[in-house]
Amino acid sequence: MWTVKVVSLGVVALSLSLELLFWLFSRRRSERITNKVLFFPSEVACVEHIFSPTLPHSHVCSLPHGVDTSFSRLLRYILSACSSLDLCLFSFSNMDLSRAVLLLHSRGVTIRVLTDKVYSAISGSQIGVLRKAGICVRCDVSAVHMHHKFAVVDGRTLITGSLNWTLTAVQSNMENIIITEEPDLVQPFVKEFCRLWGLNDSAQYLSSVTD
Amino acid sequence: MWTVKVVSLGVVALSLSLELLFWLFSRRRSERITNKVLFFPSEVACVEHIFSPTLPHSHVCSLPHGVDTSFSRLLRYILSACSSLDLCLFSFSNMDLSRAVLLLHSRGVTIRVLTDKVYSAISGSQIGVLRKAGICVRCDVSAVHMHHKFAVVDGRTLITGSLNWTLTAVQSNMENIIITEEPDLVQPFVKEFCRLWGLNDSAQYLSSVTD
Repeated sequence: MWTVKVVSLGVVALSLSLELLFWLFSRRRSERITNKVLFFPSEVACVEHIFSPTLPHSHVCSLPHGVDTSFSRLLRYILSACSSLDLCLFSFSNMDLSRAVLLLHSRGVTIRVLTDKVYSAISGSQIGVLRKAGICVRCDVSAVHMHHKFAVVDGRTLITGSLNWTLTAVQSNMENIIITEEPDLVQPFVKEFCRLWGLNDSAQYLSSVTD
Repeated sequence: MWTVKVVSLGVVALSLSLELLFWLFSRRRSERITNKVLFFPSEVACVEHIFSPTLPHSHVCSLPHGVDTSFSRLLRYILSACSSLDLCLFSFSNMDLSRAVLLLHSRGVTIRVLTDKVYSAISGSQIGVLRKAGICVRCDVSAVHMHHKFAVVDGRTLITGSLNWTLTAVQSNMENIIITEEPDLVQPFVKEFCRLWGLNDSAQYLSSVTD
C-alpha cells in the first residue's frame, strides 16, 4: 500500500507541475502579445530624450520634459523597429515622425513608404524629404485616395487607426491608434501592404502607361 | 504490483484528460475571440438580402446578388447588435449604414451617435435623419475635429479603422477596418466613448455657455 501511495502521489505531483507549467506558458504568451490603444490629441511635450536618450534633460526648449504622452509612446513604438518598417500613409507631414523614420533609415532599418499621390505633393509633406534621404517611396497611382494610416514594424507589430501623420492630428484632433501583435490582425495588413506595394511599382506603372 | 500499475495508470489517464480539457478550453476561448480585418474599396453588390433575409433573391436591382463583400460583412457586424451600438464617427453619409442603424433602432437597440459638428451639417450627412428618427445624437462641440471612425457593438465588439461611413470610403478609397473582441483593445474605446459622450452632453454644454 505504501508503494501505491508513493507512486500515485508522484504521478499527481508530476501532473500538477505540468498543468502549472502549461498555465504559466499560456499566460506568458498572452502577456507577451502587445495590445495597446493610444488616444489623441496628445499632450504637447519635449520628445528630444526619445531621439537622444543619452542627452541630459536639457532646457533647450520651453516644453515640459520627461512627460509620457500618447505621441511619445507612438514614437517609441516606431523607433523600436530593428529590421523593417512599412508605412502606408494617406498624409505624412509630422516632422518628429519624419525624424524618427530618417533615424531608423540611418540605422540600416529597411523602410518602405506607400503614400497618396495627391497628399504627397501638398505643402509641408515629408515625402520629398524621405525620398531625398534615399528611402524607398511609392505613390499610389490610382484615381482614388489611398486613405490608410498604418505602419508595420519588423513584420510583426501593427500600428493603425484614424491618425494621419500630421501635426494637427497629433496635437489637435480626437484620434485613435491601435498597437497590436495579434497575428490575425497583423498578417492581413502585411499581405495588403505587399499587394499595394506591388501594384504601385513605378517601373510597372510607367511601363503600362507607355505601352 | 498490479494495484500500483492500475492506480498509476488511472492517475496518468486522469491527468492527460485534464490536460486535454484545459487545452481544448484554451483553444475554444481563443477561437471565440473575433479578430478580423476588412479592406476597401468593397466590390459593389446588392445588400438587400442582409436587411431582408427572408426575401427571395429578387431582381429589383442590377447589382450582383449573393456576393460576400467587405461592405456586406461590415453591415452584418453592425446588424449583429442586440442591446447597444455606440458610434463615434467623423463623417456619416452612407445610406446603407444609416439604414442599418435605423433598423437596429426599430428593434429596440440602444444607439448613441457622437459625431463631428462641422461634418454633421454637410450635404448628404445622415445625422439629421438619425436624429429625426429619435436616435440620441451628440455633436462634438470643440474647435477641433472629432476624427474617430469607430463603433462598439453590445459593449464588446470594436469596429475601427480608417474608413469614414461614406459612399466614397466604401466604394472608392483604399481603407481598412478592424473588428475585434480583444478586451485590451475594446475596453479603452468603451471608456473613451463614455468620456467623450459625457464631455459633449449638450445640456452641460449649453449650461456652461450661458453661465
